[in-house]
Amino acid sequence: MDRAISMPVVRRLPRYYRYLGELSDRGVARVSSMELSRLMDITASQIRQDFNNFGCFGQQGYGYNVEMLKEEIAKILGLNRLYKLVIIGAGNLGQALARYSRFAKRGFIFIGLFDNNPNLIGMQVSGLTIRHVNELKEFLVDQKPDIAVFSLPDENAKDILDIVVKSGVKGIWNFSQLDLDKSCGIKVQSVHLTDSLMTLSYMLNEE
Amino acid sequence: MDRAISMPVVRRLPRYYRYLGELSDRGVARVSSMELSRLMDITASQIRQDFNNFGCFGQQGYGYNVEMLKEEIAKILGLNRLYKLVIIGAGNLGQALARYSRFAKRGFIFIGLFDNNPNLIGMQVSGLTIRHVNELKEFLVDQKPDIAVFSLPDENAKDILDIVVKSGVKGIWNFSQLDLDKSCGIKVQSVHLTDSLMTLSYMLNEE
Repeated sequence: MDRAISMPVVRRLPRYYRYLGELSDRGVARVSSMELSRLMDITASQIRQDFNNFGCFGQQGYGYNVEMLKEEIAKILGLNRLYKLVIIGAGNLGQALARYSRFAKRGFIFIGLFDNNPNLIGMQVSGLTIRHVNELKEFLVDQKPDIAVFSLPDENAKDILDIVVKSGVKGIWNFSQLDLDKSCGIKVQSVHLTDSLMTLSYMLNEE
Repeated sequence: MDRAISMPVVRRLPRYYRYLGELSDRGVARVSSMELSRLMDITASQIRQDFNNFGCFGQQGYGYNVEMLKEEIAKILGLNRLYKLVIIGAGNLGQALARYSRFAKRGFIFIGLFDNNPNLIGMQVSGLTIRHVNELKEFLVDQKPDIAVFSLPDENAKDILDIVVKSGVKGIWNFSQLDLDKSCGIKVQSVHLTDSLMTLSYMLNEE
């Protein structure tokens, strides 16, 4: 892995990947930084700088090869392999995530769905059977998922975190309100929905 | 509104608000930047700098008054009022959002839920009846929601955007893959779930 890529650049890569995917789907073979700039509302010089970071230099009068650039970004993002995900918390959000087909297209495969609500156990969601969290530890040891999705109530998150960390899961996709980022070497990416709404309410009151 | 607050600081405010809320719930009356730093994994000097931005200066040997600081941040984020939200797209994600009670506690109230799937029309979700998008335009004009939640398939998002913008809605909370940010003066806050997963897969492959 190229360690020279800073997190702000990394956070822009999925968006580049998305736009390049659309261009590729439309059969576009090459794109200039100017064209990408118009599409994405990022300056052309920012785009060139970002791509230079991982050794992709556009050619004067030609631009970038869409397919090559897309593949390069996929490689950096680690999208050239499959990831096994287990969803912990099969309430509305957990079920919505399990049913969302776009993730599988990118190589993120749900292999398990757990909850502690007896009314949910045994229910089928998108081909998965909801199982009791009592069975989680064994499942993690057996199946070795790459990512645990935390779509469970905050009050349960700490106990589950302990189980997950000890089982050797390396990544957490966190929808709980807990900030898990400090925990023992595990990689955490949080989606704080309420924070995002509050940022929007700030924007509505600007000026 | 204090226009001197930069977006990176604004984006940290919901997290401060969350931690101050927890301290307040636990009956903690004052907190130092050092204590907050330990809790939040942000440097104490960054915290002091952030709070100085909106004129909250901690007192030597006392720290910050938790309640005052929390109220000040709430005011900046525009949380001292109610927001009416309409959810467009009542699939799994839309229903999950409608059922999520935490938003109402912060003043974000769902007043409508729309879809174009005949099988969903008439269904009750968390006290709301799912209505057909044909009725959306009239609803927006009558009810004047502050925020439209886009939890609908990308291919429908552009048409809906047009209706929403024309009706005078000021903010969009966007879960679609479309980047709506360039559109005509409306404020957009996007939650790109797939982008977030890709960032996590990058983190898993670091080193």
